[in-house]
Amino acid sequence: MTLTPSVPKWPWCTRRRHRLIPPTTALTRTSGSRTLPSSKDEVRCKVPQQELLQLLEELKPASAAETAEATSVIGIGLDSCVIKTRHKDIFLVQTTDFFYPLIDDPYIQGKIAAANVLSDLYAMGVTQCDNMLMLLALSMEMPADARKVTTSLVMKGFRDACHEADTSVNGGQTVLNPWMIVGGVASSVAAKGEFIEPAHARAGDVLVLTKPLGTQPAVNAHQWLHTNAFQRVQDVITPEEAVAAYRMAMHSMARLNRNAAKLMHECGARGATDVTGFGLLGHARNLAEAQDEQVDFIIDSLPVIAKMPAVNSKFNFKLLDGFSAETSGGLLVVLPPDQAERYCAALQEMDGIPAWTIGRVVKGNNTASLAPDVKVEEVHTPQLFN
Amino acid sequence: MTLTPSVPKWPWCTRRRHRLIPPTTALTRTSGSRTLPSSKDEVRCKVPQQELLQLLEELKPASAAETAEATSVIGIGLDSCVIKTRHKDIFLVQTTDFFYPLIDDPYIQGKIAAANVLSDLYAMGVTQCDNMLMLLALSMEMPADARKVTTSLVMKGFRDACHEADTSVNGGQTVLNPWMIVGGVASSVAAKGEFIEPAHARAGDVLVLTKPLGTQPAVNAHQWLHTNAFQRVQDVITPEEAVAAYRMAMHSMARLNRNAAKLMHECGARGATDVTGFGLLGHARNLAEAQDEQVDFIIDSLPVIAKMPAVNSKFNFKLLDGFSAETSGGLLVVLPPDQAERYCAALQEMDGIPAWTIGRVVKGNNTASLAPDVKVEEVHTPQLFN
Repeated sequence: MTLTPSVPKWPWCTRRRHRLIPPTTALTRTSGSRTLPSSKDEVRCKVPQQELLQLLEELKPASAAETAEATSVIGIGLDSCVIKTRHKDIFLVQTTDFFYPLIDDPYIQGKIAAANVLSDLYAMGVTQCDNMLMLLALSMEMPADARKVTTSLVMKGFRDACHEADTSVNGGQTVLNPWMIVGGVASSVAAKGEFIEPAHARAGDVLVLTKPLGTQPAVNAHQWLHTNAFQRVQDVITPEEAVAAYRMAMHSMARLNRNAAKLMHECGARGATDVTGFGLLGHARNLAEAQDEQVDFIIDSLPVIAKMPAVNSKFNFKLLDGFSAETSGGLLVVLPPDQAERYCAALQEMDGIPAWTIGRVVKGNNTASLAPDVKVEEVHTPQLFN
Repeated sequence: MTLTPSVPKWPWCTRRRHRLIPPTTALTRTSGSRTLPSSKDEVRCKVPQQELLQLLEELKPASAAETAEATSVIGIGLDSCVIKTRHKDIFLVQTTDFFYPLIDDPYIQGKIAAANVLSDLYAMGVTQCDNMLMLLALSMEMPADARKVTTSLVMKGFRDACHEADTSVNGGQTVLNPWMIVGGVASSVAAKGEFIEPAHARAGDVLVLTKPLGTQPAVNAHQWLHTNAFQRVQDVITPEEAVAAYRMAMHSMARLNRNAAKLMHECGARGATDVTGFGLLGHARNLAEAQDEQVDFIIDSLPVIAKMPAVNSKFNFKLLDGFSAETSGGLLVVLPPDQAERYCAALQEMDGIPAWTIGRVVKGNNTASLAPDVKVEEVHTPQLFN
């Protein structure tokens, strides 16, 4: 598979940090004490993509000899890098991600951080993480007591999610920093066949999504709840509905994509990606560009957390354009047409939560787009928790 | 090997962040514009060890069943963790480290960050890193132009050190943060025999150190140069000597311990550790505690960067007590007595820089101490660069 220049080789440059609550307030606030971060704050916390792409040039091999050495790297790392090792048919698949807290429940925040890192392995069809390193910065701006309590809970959540994933944390690094940071490094030593190159979509295949969209508006609407900012959406969503959406988003972000990865093997998936900072369509485009065959991805429906289209109508997160950023989003899986129904049914059986056939693969030019008559399907809490 | 409770299982809690120059100033300042960080600043940037140890409890397995699962972790990870994989006789050896810039040359800072992470693999006798992930936070407090220039140089230095180590950077994560952060994750998929358990010291063995001590006072004295703070040491060191010491420290921190690791295999090393935040004696104690046999380590001499004992006499870094923190320090290698001379000669031949026999292994109680008549040997620039 050849990566076109527009597909960044480094997974990190496909990651936009879309939410940044200064963590000292996010993790310790009680209701009402927090105002909405200004858009300036939000912008300031992202590395401008152009700046990042320029910087990444610095990491490219300096010489032809070095380029030759670098052939041990398999260029399929949309979500994780895959490295040939010195051992026959043994590969190192690994990924790292870290970010700032985005919700006010530190235990669930820890679970989300672990699920988010692991998801990059799962998108490659890797189901067993052999080791997790934890990356942590404690907030020096947080009072000592609050820091202790919140950090403990973040670590507990991180550990529990790793345990659920049948792996454990062995190693890491901790520093003090103005803001809290939480993340990890997930690694798997995988044999050939234990990972799936995300490159084999064929016209006629279908696209399945394993989690609903809309975590960003859900987290924001909840953040606005006890501030003046909620006024901007109170015509379209009740406080109770905002809380329900937030809970659904937290549950969804903390849920592992591991069963989704296991089923990729059983159902002959042609490849997958996980939906994070670029939103569904951004990641669908990256995946489309990475295909061996000349295909396009057409998105026919958008399963979104209930009431989020209404919130989006008051504050445009680009949710209905397919570009609302997600944290620890679902897998977008390319499946043979006769396998999608089986895949969704099996995942519902294993996780107790639905997956959705949302699109199709057609002949094309390696891009992705929404169908002109794209349908928006609101996902209600009872659907997820009944 | 059984780890005693006082040897932290997680490598990260043996890492003290001993130097923290707020990076926006550290990387962009011109001479004279920077004042010495107050001791309060320095203290604030370390995670108090007690707090960290308590927090790490959160990562311990929650149940007996989980403990059983965790047996795939080999408890020898003084510097790196070593994980049994599902593949026969194949282990994942990995480590992570990140910190804030500590010198004002961004290119060399990048090299030091890479050398520092790799050193944890080398201390385990692992000579081949299969992949490096880069961890990076760009300083949002730094003006855009300065940020671009300095970050580029840090990344170039990091890449070049990885190239020198015969590995490359494939993946990572980048965020914006108040302070710059630079570090990485080094991983090796190693067969049995490609790493050396640091547990087999015997009475009669000798201790070799591969880099001189004193990087912390050298970096500080240089930082003080154009400030009032230099007054406190100007009776004992000239500005030219301070610059020479700083250069020796930079060169030493940026130098890979890779040849030192290769020679561990050739000379039948019984184990090693790398000297970083706890200082020589701190790490020697951790290593002594990790030994299978009941032995003590006695340090007979301290090779230190020239003039640093004098600086230490004016501002106590605990250099002569063996506790001055190092960044990317040397390996402390336990060797059979008949191999030390050969090891030092071969390393001098390969790296062009001396190593020193600094101590011995005697029967004891798994601790380490300085000999009552410990000798201080000042290492001068010509010794390193002739």
